[in-house]
Amino acid sequence: MAERKRVVIIGAGFAGLRAAHVLAKQAVDVTIVDRRNHHTFQPLLYQVALAVLNPSDIAQPIRAEFRHAKNVDVLMDEVIGFDIDHHHIDLRSGARLAYDYLIVATGSTHSYFGRDDWAKLAPGLKTIEDAVDIRRRVLLAFELAEREMLEKGTHPELNFVIIGGGPTGVELAGAISDIAKLYMRRDFRHIDPSEARVMILEGSPSILAAYPEDLRQKAVEQLNQLGVEVITGTHVTDVQPGYVILGSGPDAKRIDAVVTLWAAGVQASPLGKLLNVETDRRGCVLVDQFLNPKDHPEIFVCGDLAHVEENGRQIPGTAQPAMQMGVHAAEMITQDLNHAKRTPFHYFDKGDMATIGRKAAVAKVIWPFKAHMSGFPAWIVWLVIHISFLVNFRSRLAVFRQWAYTYLFFKDGARLIVGSQDLPGWNELDDKEKLDPTAPAPELSAKR
Amino acid sequence: MAERKRVVIIGAGFAGLRAAHVLAKQAVDVTIVDRRNHHTFQPLLYQVALAVLNPSDIAQPIRAEFRHAKNVDVLMDEVIGFDIDHHHIDLRSGARLAYDYLIVATGSTHSYFGRDDWAKLAPGLKTIEDAVDIRRRVLLAFELAEREMLEKGTHPELNFVIIGGGPTGVELAGAISDIAKLYMRRDFRHIDPSEARVMILEGSPSILAAYPEDLRQKAVEQLNQLGVEVITGTHVTDVQPGYVILGSGPDAKRIDAVVTLWAAGVQASPLGKLLNVETDRRGCVLVDQFLNPKDHPEIFVCGDLAHVEENGRQIPGTAQPAMQMGVHAAEMITQDLNHAKRTPFHYFDKGDMATIGRKAAVAKVIWPFKAHMSGFPAWIVWLVIHISFLVNFRSRLAVFRQWAYTYLFFKDGARLIVGSQDLPGWNELDDKEKLDPTAPAPELSAKR
Repeated sequence: MAERKRVVIIGAGFAGLRAAHVLAKQAVDVTIVDRRNHHTFQPLLYQVALAVLNPSDIAQPIRAEFRHAKNVDVLMDEVIGFDIDHHHIDLRSGARLAYDYLIVATGSTHSYFGRDDWAKLAPGLKTIEDAVDIRRRVLLAFELAEREMLEKGTHPELNFVIIGGGPTGVELAGAISDIAKLYMRRDFRHIDPSEARVMILEGSPSILAAYPEDLRQKAVEQLNQLGVEVITGTHVTDVQPGYVILGSGPDAKRIDAVVTLWAAGVQASPLGKLLNVETDRRGCVLVDQFLNPKDHPEIFVCGDLAHVEENGRQIPGTAQPAMQMGVHAAEMITQDLNHAKRTPFHYFDKGDMATIGRKAAVAKVIWPFKAHMSGFPAWIVWLVIHISFLVNFRSRLAVFRQWAYTYLFFKDGARLIVGSQDLPGWNELDDKEKLDPTAPAPELSAKR
Repeated sequence: MAERKRVVIIGAGFAGLRAAHVLAKQAVDVTIVDRRNHHTFQPLLYQVALAVLNPSDIAQPIRAEFRHAKNVDVLMDEVIGFDIDHHHIDLRSGARLAYDYLIVATGSTHSYFGRDDWAKLAPGLKTIEDAVDIRRRVLLAFELAEREMLEKGTHPELNFVIIGGGPTGVELAGAISDIAKLYMRRDFRHIDPSEARVMILEGSPSILAAYPEDLRQKAVEQLNQLGVEVITGTHVTDVQPGYVILGSGPDAKRIDAVVTLWAAGVQASPLGKLLNVETDRRGCVLVDQFLNPKDHPEIFVCGDLAHVEENGRQIPGTAQPAMQMGVHAAEMITQDLNHAKRTPFHYFDKGDMATIGRKAAVAKVIWPFKAHMSGFPAWIVWLVIHISFLVNFRSRLAVFRQWAYTYLFFKDGARLIVGSQDLPGWNELDDKEKLDPTAPAPELSAKR
């Protein structure tokens, strides 16, 4: 028998995890390298950000996932270099890892279009840490407003500004509006959280650009019903502590924001460029129909790090295509081992959906039937699909229970603020009345 | 009718929360001031630290607790000064808060005996943030060991050193030993987590000094059965990245440690001193039998910030006395309103207990019967009491379910590593083989 082949998988997102599961049943040795010790179920991250779910409800330690797969190794480390001519990668810890096959699936990260200084002011949502930070900012805004209301009898407008009207932006906006109007309202005495304004700022002419026109319309209607303001066709030109600038020149407009979130742009993980093969404008690796970069059949690039075109359209960077690519890459390796011919990848598009708050969604269904759905029926479809796709049985139960608790019985998740108590820009908003440190402190009026 | 009295409660721990609940039913206005937005059920913090429970299982937003008590205000702010002659407090935000009655219950914090530089190297366990940090360190130690084992065929000894043999130290030690031997073992391929060494270093002659001799003995036996080493009668004289020094002079001994935890000393919250009344050596406020500092019957100090003696012994700084003091303070305020005479505080001591791992404990029971219990029966008593005391019904259910899952079915909590991937001192331990950056990277050997 020939020596067993070693497959190295970089990134334990949807693509990497699916590939590893397929290869776990084959006569190969697999090493998964990831900077984190857990897989994150990204489609539900926004619910962690809005304190509906716990981080552990949507994250699963990678090791636990492969506990019974003795041919799968998990390495918590970071890739810092490739030598694709000599088939090895270099790791942050100093080690070098040789491979026969390499699957690169490190996904994407936020793109601030060259304005990386905006990242601290307007965090995006890609990781558990991001979600916990966004949660802290949103909850803290209400606490600080209550404090100022007691202290001064007034507080800055509770404007939540979301830059970017893709699915993540829409989901964040709906969820913030929900928690302000449904849950926070009961907890505060002096402010009215339901007066919070939630705004989506989208540079292109329409939100949810990937969706058909009728669903885009429905989405705007449903957002408006929740009180979310949708402003399209104007670009954000500056992000500052406490406000953003919309447009430029004489039409430029300042929009105050207690919390600004970024859902506007993504770029490929830097590993794409590090591979030293051809990439596109966003840093995605150009691969052929077999998911290989040019001249490297032993390397597969999967998920949203890959630029794959089918029928002249680029396959979207969502969970479905990522999982399918992961499975395909693993199957092609298996076919090599069996001396079978490789087959091209085809994306089986079942459709797309985005939730809008607690009981609405838009869904472009392609399989098992073609339909455009919106409102409550679409939301039910979203619910069923997302529960069934959660990483394991336990999370599925936990999440379902949590949702039933939150949505059906109107109870709420634990809204813990963990970490810093600073909210960038809060004081910026408070410029009506600059405190003179030598003046006597204002007496606290707590009249109701 | 006279104007309603305002009661300000500082700190939403066990004492402050109980006081607020009693006062919520009285004709007074209550303002709770806390730096955090949540109450923490501290007796179970160590289970969050060891990834058995989620932060939200043992923490409850203060607002949610008083949602239906319209006379209770919650203010997330920090007290920076008292003017007890003029009955007001100053807050970090710049506001001044007037009171008729003041309940100060801000508890205690870690004491590093003047070596605050040790805090980063050996974190203590008082807050949710502490618990999440300890979790990160413990889990990361196993991940880094696995990585080094793959890379170099060897790894630093997995020594977990706990400084201090009080209940917290004993509980942390038992829990670390448990997760290493029962759960982590199944997840790693190249290291053997059950070889982890857990050590308790206690300066005084015995661990659990507050317990009777027979239970202290039992505790050491049960810890030894779990593989925990108990070293008493020698002081830690230095804490460094990667090791601690035990003793001094020619007998000084270096003990390597991948993770060092601090459970050795507490001191009163700095607010005790800020009150400008008499305090003891640890900064606790000396109060009379009515829980008032001298000459200030309108101020109550409760919980472990208070130095209360009964029958010549200081009442311990645990949850039970804190809750009883909180209730007492609130009742005395009520008696004032009813023009009734105040009554002295008496601590109703039901006993004390500390868990040792997953199925053992020691318990000094005083009420409803007197007994010294240990082993599994003591653990069952601990379980029942802690479930029944959890902050609210929902947490109770959630925690019970989680425990049943973890302890009975041998499944495990989600061990997510969130935050930095650095472990202070890790490289310090690795000095057998200093990497030469110009040498070729070691080839990764992944033989099984």
